[in-house]
Amino acid sequence: MFITFEGLDGSGKTTVMKELSKKLRSLNPRLEIIETREPGGKDLKEAERIREIILDTQSDLSPVAEAMLYSTSRRIHLEKIIWPAIKENKLVLCDRYIDSFYAYQGFARGLGYEFAKSLTTLIIDNAIPDITIFLDATPEDSKKRRDKSRLFEDRLENEKTEFHQKVYGGYKHLINEDPNRFLIVDAMMTPEEVCDEIVDKLYKNEKFKKFIQTI
Amino acid sequence: MFITFEGLDGSGKTTVMKELSKKLRSLNPRLEIIETREPGGKDLKEAERIREIILDTQSDLSPVAEAMLYSTSRRIHLEKIIWPAIKENKLVLCDRYIDSFYAYQGFARGLGYEFAKSLTTLIIDNAIPDITIFLDATPEDSKKRRDKSRLFEDRLENEKTEFHQKVYGGYKHLINEDPNRFLIVDAMMTPEEVCDEIVDKLYKNEKFKKFIQTI
Repeated sequence: MFITFEGLDGSGKTTVMKELSKKLRSLNPRLEIIETREPGGKDLKEAERIREIILDTQSDLSPVAEAMLYSTSRRIHLEKIIWPAIKENKLVLCDRYIDSFYAYQGFARGLGYEFAKSLTTLIIDNAIPDITIFLDATPEDSKKRRDKSRLFEDRLENEKTEFHQKVYGGYKHLINEDPNRFLIVDAMMTPEEVCDEIVDKLYKNEKFKKFIQTI
Repeated sequence: MFITFEGLDGSGKTTVMKELSKKLRSLNPRLEIIETREPGGKDLKEAERIREIILDTQSDLSPVAEAMLYSTSRRIHLEKIIWPAIKENKLVLCDRYIDSFYAYQGFARGLGYEFAKSLTTLIIDNAIPDITIFLDATPEDSKKRRDKSRLFEDRLENEKTEFHQKVYGGYKHLINEDPNRFLIVDAMMTPEEVCDEIVDKLYKNEKFKKFIQTI
């Protein structure tokens, strides 16, 4: 079972994913959960080095070159973290995945969704998430949260408001295209409330119910 | 005009390319020539950093991940070196390009030619060389030369004889598939003889003749 978390920076993905993981563990003591995010942690040194090139404010990368580096990092993460865990019937929770790529690079950075999708389809060997949790916060609301925390200083975070509007529009497009895969949750509730709503929705989801029966 | 040089390690590509460049300059004083090879020189620091990851003997990359890094480096090289030079009507001489990728990664490293070609087609925006000079040395002959010079110590050069056989077979496949693009030259002649034969063949080549008229 492969679940991804999507939403704008500041929508609370990281916090909610941790909360949800704890809650699911307490509800299903035999469930093994892997929490991950691209590039997949310090152990994947190749992916980490690729990420450094992308995030380096000195890098002068075209949208296509940047997309290829993200895709390489994604592939390594699949090979070394996600596919092995899925094979062992673990639950994989992943903070951002292909929908981030489509929304940020495809829709917002001018790469084009079609190109982003062609490249991704070629290299992920059909590893589409079973469920994608979209933490729905508008560009305005997520910006307020980011301004509060000031956690991010890298190049990606220096983008303009207009950029985040495009990302948000991209997400909406992706949800319309594949509505059954997405669980949409209002991200402006407290992390506990968000988490409770996700648990509720997961236990009503057919794929998740089937998976839990195999544990 | 975009001309690439292909052949096994030890077939003399680098030497011959330099010789040819000199000769063409003396024959056509107004001709501007760019000599390059992937990743495109020290100025392309992103491509150089990508190459370091590939060549690092500590890297544990799958064929797909390695292919993606090569392709990213290729794209950056196209964007920053090759396309600008072609636009200015220069002659681009490039030491190895997509045929190396197909022969080494596609045919010899188990990536599969089909995948290598799909990925490449997606990212090179139709930048197929006008002419590809294949320096034809058998795996046995090129190994003898490599043993003599011992220039290479990286991971790629530590491969087995069987590997070089597959690379050579890959090149033969590519030549059969697109015979009009290739000029095949016996690489076991002296560099001067090889160079003379290339010049002779170039000046009989319709594409090259047309290009020279525009200078």
